[in-house]
Amino acid sequence: MKVVGDGGGPDTQLRIVEVATRLFGQIGFQKTTVADIARELHMSPANVYRFFSAKSEINEAVCRSQLAETEAALADIAQRGGAASPLLRASIVAIEKGNAQRFLENRKLHELVETAFNENWPVAREHARKLNESLAEIIAGGNAKGEFHVEDCGLAAILVRSACMRFCHPRLMVECAQDPEPTIDQMIDFCLLALR
Amino acid sequence: MKVVGDGGGPDTQLRIVEVATRLFGQIGFQKTTVADIARELHMSPANVYRFFSAKSEINEAVCRSQLAETEAALADIAQRGGAASPLLRASIVAIEKGNAQRFLENRKLHELVETAFNENWPVAREHARKLNESLAEIIAGGNAKGEFHVEDCGLAAILVRSACMRFCHPRLMVECAQDPEPTIDQMIDFCLLALR
Repeated sequence: MKVVGDGGGPDTQLRIVEVATRLFGQIGFQKTTVADIARELHMSPANVYRFFSAKSEINEAVCRSQLAETEAALADIAQRGGAASPLLRASIVAIEKGNAQRFLENRKLHELVETAFNENWPVAREHARKLNESLAEIIAGGNAKGEFHVEDCGLAAILVRSACMRFCHPRLMVECAQDPEPTIDQMIDFCLLALR
Repeated sequence: MKVVGDGGGPDTQLRIVEVATRLFGQIGFQKTTVADIARELHMSPANVYRFFSAKSEINEAVCRSQLAETEAALADIAQRGGAASPLLRASIVAIEKGNAQRFLENRKLHELVETAFNENWPVAREHARKLNESLAEIIAGGNAKGEFHVEDCGLAAILVRSACMRFCHPRLMVECAQDPEPTIDQMIDFCLLALR
């Protein structure tokens, strides 16, 4: 039996999130207790509470790790050179793909993310802020190249993400899947027209 | 006691919808039974079933009557003359206003409409079709005046409504109310840029 030491701060924190992610994916975040997580880690609930002062903080941390991949993908796309339009398209497609993948691979983890969005958890707001930042950077690049003509790049990022909400929002993406139109490309084309 | 005659076809149908609307607004559509509706009308459940073959049909009919006002408002706006941009703005504002009013005035009737949208009832699809028709008519008018330059007005209508989903969707409107941006005017301005 591997016993997790008390001393390994960030390491223990990471392991708690890993185990919580696995349990959330198996039985759902609402049914998983701090005692369940502690048991899997061979530690006491009190020790878990040294790292996360409430179960809701564990929920947020797992959700954050679920959203990190899409945030990294967008930050990466924003760093690429070249025309801004394909970068913007790639970004929206990456957001949609991240949601779709999670939905297909693990419905229970998807429900956690859905709940975070529905209930406007801090992690959902933080996620929106990060995505907006990357989109604004791409739009500013398009402005600099004369490809776009936008006054307020931050607002334009919010508008593009709002317009594409059907594809970017974890629950809407599922609900609207049966509507044949607009396609994600049609919606992005529409946004690009507004930015030019 | 006023007894409703068996003979008054459309009249009885209308009264069933009126009474169902009242009960749905008081106790919610899920808790209201056909027996409750029949009792209020001093008729037998069997007689109600002569007009609506299932409770779900009464749900749809009540929902349809809830959405009719917004549909009429948009059809009316589409008939007005003048520049297309303000007509388009007035239409999106009317959709948002219809939802907001219902939400503020009767939460339980709003829940019925929300459920119709969430579960994609036929009445929700029909509503979307009617709104798209009015928006497409306005956009075609803008095209004719050289104000817009749109190839497919039907698709453009779908794109505008999708882009403005945050304001037009009965549940999202509530969920997103705390996000300060985009405002409805910013979102409509963005759409107008794409249409020009």
